[in-house]
Amino acid sequence: MKSEIEDLIALLAKLPGLGPRSARRAALHLIKRKEALLLPLGEALARAADTIRTCSVCGNIDTADPCAICRDGKRETGAICVVADIADLWALERAGAFGGRYHVLGGLLSAVEGRMPGDLRIDRLADRAGDEGISEVVLALAATVDGQTTAHYITDRLRTFGVRVSQLAHGVPVGGELDYLDDGTLTAAIKERRSV
Amino acid sequence: MKSEIEDLIALLAKLPGLGPRSARRAALHLIKRKEALLLPLGEALARAADTIRTCSVCGNIDTADPCAICRDGKRETGAICVVADIADLWALERAGAFGGRYHVLGGLLSAVEGRMPGDLRIDRLADRAGDEGISEVVLALAATVDGQTTAHYITDRLRTFGVRVSQLAHGVPVGGELDYLDDGTLTAAIKERRSV
Repeated sequence: MKSEIEDLIALLAKLPGLGPRSARRAALHLIKRKEALLLPLGEALARAADTIRTCSVCGNIDTADPCAICRDGKRETGAICVVADIADLWALERAGAFGGRYHVLGGLLSAVEGRMPGDLRIDRLADRAGDEGISEVVLALAATVDGQTTAHYITDRLRTFGVRVSQLAHGVPVGGELDYLDDGTLTAAIKERRSV
Repeated sequence: MKSEIEDLIALLAKLPGLGPRSARRAALHLIKRKEALLLPLGEALARAADTIRTCSVCGNIDTADPCAICRDGKRETGAICVVADIADLWALERAGAFGGRYHVLGGLLSAVEGRMPGDLRIDRLADRAGDEGISEVVLALAATVDGQTTAHYITDRLRTFGVRVSQLAHGVPVGGELDYLDDGTLTAAIKERRSV
């Protein structure tokens, strides 16, 4: 097999959800559908590389900085929803569960993986909580040890700013990940958020 | 979410093994790893589109036509192994199970899917069986109804050419697909092939 095909398979195998065998199938599927899939996917990747950037305010990705959510004048300005990852932000937006703005931490504090407060966008969150006339910070973090450790750390950190810090209602299955929840559960958890 | 991201997700969701949710995860994974993965994958796709073509002799894909296997002077010239799909050819090559050349049909005869002899590269196989001093055609087709129908059809078709037609030994699990077999089973099945 030629290196062009092997290179393609090796790169596809790095995608989450594709192992070596399914990467081979995906490569073959692409090569057989050159006009319908291979070329369009190549172009979509190039376009994404050119246009997509990280929002300097909230950490979301978009083609503009600040992102569409941060610029949207119709959204509630007093509340920030803190999520670990962009996928969690997308899940909340799909559910239509939250009307305010977001803050993407870029992960959770983790003793095992050695992720410290300086590795997350927590300083930027503290700046926002101080600057923007924020009255509430909603912590939408996983109900795991790392998620709750991160929630406690952020709650302590924001104590001096006089903002209400709330977190998702129990309704989030213990040990579960936000991105895998159904819309109804996410909406209920946002509605029943409680002060920490 | 911007259309650039949605386009990328929609195209990734067309890959076998990725559904809508895993396509979102894959898109995010790519966007977060722009230099390490997104750009290289875009380039690999463009390079594959430019360089990879179908071998006019056997139907394999390669950067040259005829492909490297058809041009390889060290391979046995008297035997052709017939497979339904390129993935099956790859599986046999990975196992090192066969030392001759290949012929890729591009599918199997199927009453349900309406695939007729004219839809497969069977005429080209008959040409090769007549032209190239072939003494044996090994049918490496799935042990399914469609696979066995195709094997019977090809056996009939090649009867006038005076070539030995063999098929994989039972060892291939009934109802199983070639591409999912382990190397040992594939090698045993090639060794114990029998005349039809």
